[in-house]
Amino acid sequence: MNASEAIGPVADGVPSHGRVPKYYAVKMRLLELIETLGVGGLLPTERELAASHGVSRETVRQALRELVLEGRLRRQGRGTVVAGPKLEQPLSLGSYTEGMRRQGLRPGRRLIGFERTTASPELASDLALEPGAPLLRMERVLYADEERVGLETTFLPGERFPRLEEEFEPDSSFYGFMRERHGIHLTRGTERIETVLATPREALLVGISPALPMLLLNRVTSDQHGVPVERCRQLFRGDRFSFSVDLNPEEQQPR
Amino acid sequence: MNASEAIGPVADGVPSHGRVPKYYAVKMRLLELIETLGVGGLLPTERELAASHGVSRETVRQALRELVLEGRLRRQGRGTVVAGPKLEQPLSLGSYTEGMRRQGLRPGRRLIGFERTTASPELASDLALEPGAPLLRMERVLYADEERVGLETTFLPGERFPRLEEEFEPDSSFYGFMRERHGIHLTRGTERIETVLATPREALLVGISPALPMLLLNRVTSDQHGVPVERCRQLFRGDRFSFSVDLNPEEQQPR
Repeated sequence: MNASEAIGPVADGVPSHGRVPKYYAVKMRLLELIETLGVGGLLPTERELAASHGVSRETVRQALRELVLEGRLRRQGRGTVVAGPKLEQPLSLGSYTEGMRRQGLRPGRRLIGFERTTASPELASDLALEPGAPLLRMERVLYADEERVGLETTFLPGERFPRLEEEFEPDSSFYGFMRERHGIHLTRGTERIETVLATPREALLVGISPALPMLLLNRVTSDQHGVPVERCRQLFRGDRFSFSVDLNPEEQQPR
Repeated sequence: MNASEAIGPVADGVPSHGRVPKYYAVKMRLLELIETLGVGGLLPTERELAASHGVSRETVRQALRELVLEGRLRRQGRGTVVAGPKLEQPLSLGSYTEGMRRQGLRPGRRLIGFERTTASPELASDLALEPGAPLLRMERVLYADEERVGLETTFLPGERFPRLEEEFEPDSSFYGFMRERHGIHLTRGTERIETVLATPREALLVGISPALPMLLLNRVTSDQHGVPVERCRQLFRGDRFSFSVDLNPEEQQPR
């Protein structure tokens, strides 16, 4: 079977000599320019690009917008420069802090707030609590070096951490704190990853446009006794982050 | 420390009584309506929603657009209905086929084409080949039941699969084929996951808008002798897919 025989049914709606949208042709040429310039290289202005490619400024703008959303370019002052590669965090029971350090970056977290509340049915189920049980919510902005890159919300059984607000230094690793101060060793977790759009509040806190696709990680972890200890919601800039995982054969995976 | 003390430095650019954009207020009310209607429920028309919320149709359209991009709503004919939950695929050495079946869905794949070419330096490095060595490229559209949900590109050492075009039934599981016809058992892999925008060609093949955030998975797998056997690039609809992974303690993870 060759390609032209196989393509039949899929070709519905796919022009066999598909026309490439004009903005996309410009985007492809900008990708070549990005390779040439290298990380940190300054792009010509919109006006110059429009003139040199013989297209409207709106067409150039659309190409630039996609390249920014994808993390290939970033705005810097009034110019646009070539961005570095995306960060690559391991999906593991390690903390954000440990993942950043492994990449040679200085992790930072800044507290938005603690809140003592009660568990919704969904959170209660995740944390093996009764609905309405005391719940502690901690929200922090995540930094890589000086840059804001994400937002983390941690939900904890309130009775297990009665004095967290006083005990915990919010700019430090919470996993390290659990280990050292509470003797909690995480032994198991499940994580779900998807792409979402930031809410206006989240966009303000992270300092991004609400149009930016984000990576959302939801995690539940258990301690050495198999008791759920934390539910964590992490939102990362989709233009700056990727995640990696070591895959194991099916039969060895607990389910 | 309470929330108002802690918020200080983050509050830069965050209005303390932050105004919620009008479209976002509409979106929040539509989310309540989505809960009430349930999966498959039909939304009122744009015109009706604009009237009942006292906003412009453009404002309603922006709220609807985000809810469609996030997979909460989907277009159906001329109407808009409440979408089902996102699919949840395990990140494992199992195939797409096995993951779909576990969710009670009928996996499908339709061949776009085979191509015999030569390995670029990057692909050669991933597959432990010499640059310029024979490479086989197979591209397939992925289906869940009757719906197109993604696009898969598989890169293989050409000499290892000299007759793939004749031997392999392209609508079946390639992992099953490798096991049964070639005695290849995958023992290890690494996967990288990120969010990207579909190219116009990819959008046409999967039947989506190029504005839709996609989840991109890049995987390299090795056989039972530790030899890299496949490099796979999978692109999934971000509004329809999520991925889950079982997390293991740091010290047990091979690195």
